[in-house]
Amino acid sequence: MSVNQYIKPWTTEVKDGHLVIGGCDVVELVKKYGSPLYVIDEKTLRTVCKEYIEAFTEYPNVSILYASKALATSAIFKIVTQEGLGLDVVSGGEIYTAYKAGIDMSKLMFNGNNKQDWELESALDVGVGRISVDNFHDIELLGKITEQNNKTADILLRITPGIDCHTHEYIQTGHLDSKFGFDLTQVDDAVKLIKTTYPKINIKGLHAHIGSQIFDTAGYVDEAKILVKELARINKEYGLTLSELNLGGGLGVKYVETDTPPDIKHVANTVIKTLLAEFKEHNLSDIELYIEPGRSVISTSGVTLYTAGASKQVPHGTKYISVDGGMADNPRPAMYQAEYTCDVANKMDITEKETVTIAGRYCESGDILIKEISLPPIVSGDILCIYNTGAYNYSMASNYNRVQKIGMVLVNNSQSDIIVYRETLEDLISHDNIPDRLK
Amino acid sequence: MSVNQYIKPWTTEVKDGHLVIGGCDVVELVKKYGSPLYVIDEKTLRTVCKEYIEAFTEYPNVSILYASKALATSAIFKIVTQEGLGLDVVSGGEIYTAYKAGIDMSKLMFNGNNKQDWELESALDVGVGRISVDNFHDIELLGKITEQNNKTADILLRITPGIDCHTHEYIQTGHLDSKFGFDLTQVDDAVKLIKTTYPKINIKGLHAHIGSQIFDTAGYVDEAKILVKELARINKEYGLTLSELNLGGGLGVKYVETDTPPDIKHVANTVIKTLLAEFKEHNLSDIELYIEPGRSVISTSGVTLYTAGASKQVPHGTKYISVDGGMADNPRPAMYQAEYTCDVANKMDITEKETVTIAGRYCESGDILIKEISLPPIVSGDILCIYNTGAYNYSMASNYNRVQKIGMVLVNNSQSDIIVYRETLEDLISHDNIPDRLK
Repeated sequence: MSVNQYIKPWTTEVKDGHLVIGGCDVVELVKKYGSPLYVIDEKTLRTVCKEYIEAFTEYPNVSILYASKALATSAIFKIVTQEGLGLDVVSGGEIYTAYKAGIDMSKLMFNGNNKQDWELESALDVGVGRISVDNFHDIELLGKITEQNNKTADILLRITPGIDCHTHEYIQTGHLDSKFGFDLTQVDDAVKLIKTTYPKINIKGLHAHIGSQIFDTAGYVDEAKILVKELARINKEYGLTLSELNLGGGLGVKYVETDTPPDIKHVANTVIKTLLAEFKEHNLSDIELYIEPGRSVISTSGVTLYTAGASKQVPHGTKYISVDGGMADNPRPAMYQAEYTCDVANKMDITEKETVTIAGRYCESGDILIKEISLPPIVSGDILCIYNTGAYNYSMASNYNRVQKIGMVLVNNSQSDIIVYRETLEDLISHDNIPDRLK
Repeated sequence: MSVNQYIKPWTTEVKDGHLVIGGCDVVELVKKYGSPLYVIDEKTLRTVCKEYIEAFTEYPNVSILYASKALATSAIFKIVTQEGLGLDVVSGGEIYTAYKAGIDMSKLMFNGNNKQDWELESALDVGVGRISVDNFHDIELLGKITEQNNKTADILLRITPGIDCHTHEYIQTGHLDSKFGFDLTQVDDAVKLIKTTYPKINIKGLHAHIGSQIFDTAGYVDEAKILVKELARINKEYGLTLSELNLGGGLGVKYVETDTPPDIKHVANTVIKTLLAEFKEHNLSDIELYIEPGRSVISTSGVTLYTAGASKQVPHGTKYISVDGGMADNPRPAMYQAEYTCDVANKMDITEKETVTIAGRYCESGDILIKEISLPPIVSGDILCIYNTGAYNYSMASNYNRVQKIGMVLVNNSQSDIIVYRETLEDLISHDNIPDRLK
């Protein structure tokens, strides 16, 4: 089993009835750093990075790119790159974060359906390794910038292979209705446009991404087949030597017991086996492979700690436990009807259970973190730990209700360090301005 | 017709084929302040404030409280309070924003299902006028704080009257399944707890809130009836003189042509008529009324300007136009399947139309702002104006994909002033920390 198949961080244990992660009693973490609090378990994060590297060792030339959008902070970038991963980035802000953190820029791949001029310029300026060109506008913008700045750009062409994967299912269609990438019928025009007009753009290969929170490896198999075939066709038809394939990311994680994401090793083996067979059939060799896992790298490492406050028993109905965070620090339940698992961190030894609904503090009926979960009876002051919040929590966090964004702590070997400082009240108004005439 | 029945700001006009709001050519606004950009039309905002005041003039003692969570910035607080509104606040951050902006704190009402100790303390410290007590935990917390700090608190009891209103419909139930407020069966225990245990808590009246984006006034009528009856019952049963009623907010706005929110005056008349009849029946007089409109105050004043970038025609399918913003500056389409109306601000005179889908720049398939809208043919560089984004856009904005939050400009009489500064790249990493051992 690999990290993405666990609900809880790998170092999770119980000591004296308290939940302990990374050797740190999480109840003590809340006392020290305040509540709510994001916690990242370094061991879990490094383990899953190693699992990805290990799973693909049989493939001679592979780069694992962490999909930063899942959680982009300076410290996280440090850790994943120390483990040998590169970064899939999707904005000037992610590039800037990596640059300031001292990351090797050649290990970045810049993706996105609507890159801005300044973002492409800064990508070339700081030496971002690859740019995944998404559409004709991207080609024209990048072509103009490479000419103006007398720089070359190594790119992949992002295509939509007509495969759409989400949890449990995938579909194959002739033309995928997606804002991303070139339809297969548009690839020739893209190649021709670059070859005839933009000599400073080097097409290195092809890129695709088929979905997120994927449990079914069949989608990756079909994607690999389509990409290899297309690569071989382009090389043959245009006398090119494209030699790079980026299969994107999307591997799922286990939020609740009913989730059944596949083992990383199993996915890797399936993909490698498919690729090698396809390369043989199409007479290709020395193809560099990229994959871009995000959620499956960071999600399991992260938990969020909340303090219980008010409770309300609706007569003959729901029992609500309100916590001090909610949809602003984790918009996934409201946005995707996402499900989570939870423990009462200071009552790990209590066997008595009752069914409650965990509500957020935000002034909105829809701010419910977990509907109907069986937990030890909760009173005000209890510490709740929601698991698997490493991905798409802090990265999507807002200041809804003008509440300060919460902080993040890295735990390892009983040590804890702040990696994101909690916002202050002053931060909330730091960008406000009252024009003189209103004073 | 009142402001909430219009899709566009009241000052909207077309000059030389360009969209003009508050006397400002919005294409010029983008040149001056960058893109994307939130724009607030001061005239529209002040007009709707006046409409609310005017609509309730027949009621002798009323306070209109702007529900800050819709859009809480220092300048907006200045404008609405200058027009005679108070503020409904739901966090320490909103209280802090109002305090630093120099707002009269007695005109604030503090709501919320899980107020924190420090928030209640600061509310009492700065003299917030009313606290709407939501549950038993709130009572105990506030009781403890009033005793410890030797301060009195004037409160309303928030109840759930068994009415749930959302767009077009409302339902009445015996027990509303909501995290908010006291069920009607719990009100007596709440009153008794306060009267017997917490002498420094003064119960001034009752509060309820029945939903949001409401089009049907029938919900308000039933709410008013239930609240008045309950108030009379409590006064009689406990020998009290509760004299305040807060009906909450929730009045809808017109996002698209098919939305039919009622006129503010009509809602006010209906509510006043109901109240006066109920007061007479229950032998009540001199009842102070509060209402808490948020969306209907600010939404129509606001628009968001985007610049078109990439486009993609899916063969036999959707034509996507990507803009430079999306779900991080407006999460409502992704979160609530919200619909919006849009114009091409530099092509207002073009009659030729085509059907396009407006996609955001964020790396997520679901980042679509408007599905299938008929607009003049759009090319890269065109300026799109999405209407009715004043409420729940900036207030729910995130830094998803590590993109800087966008700025906000106030326009009036051809003048424009920044009221929220655009974030910088430096802002994005300002709270990041890399522990020494990772360096």
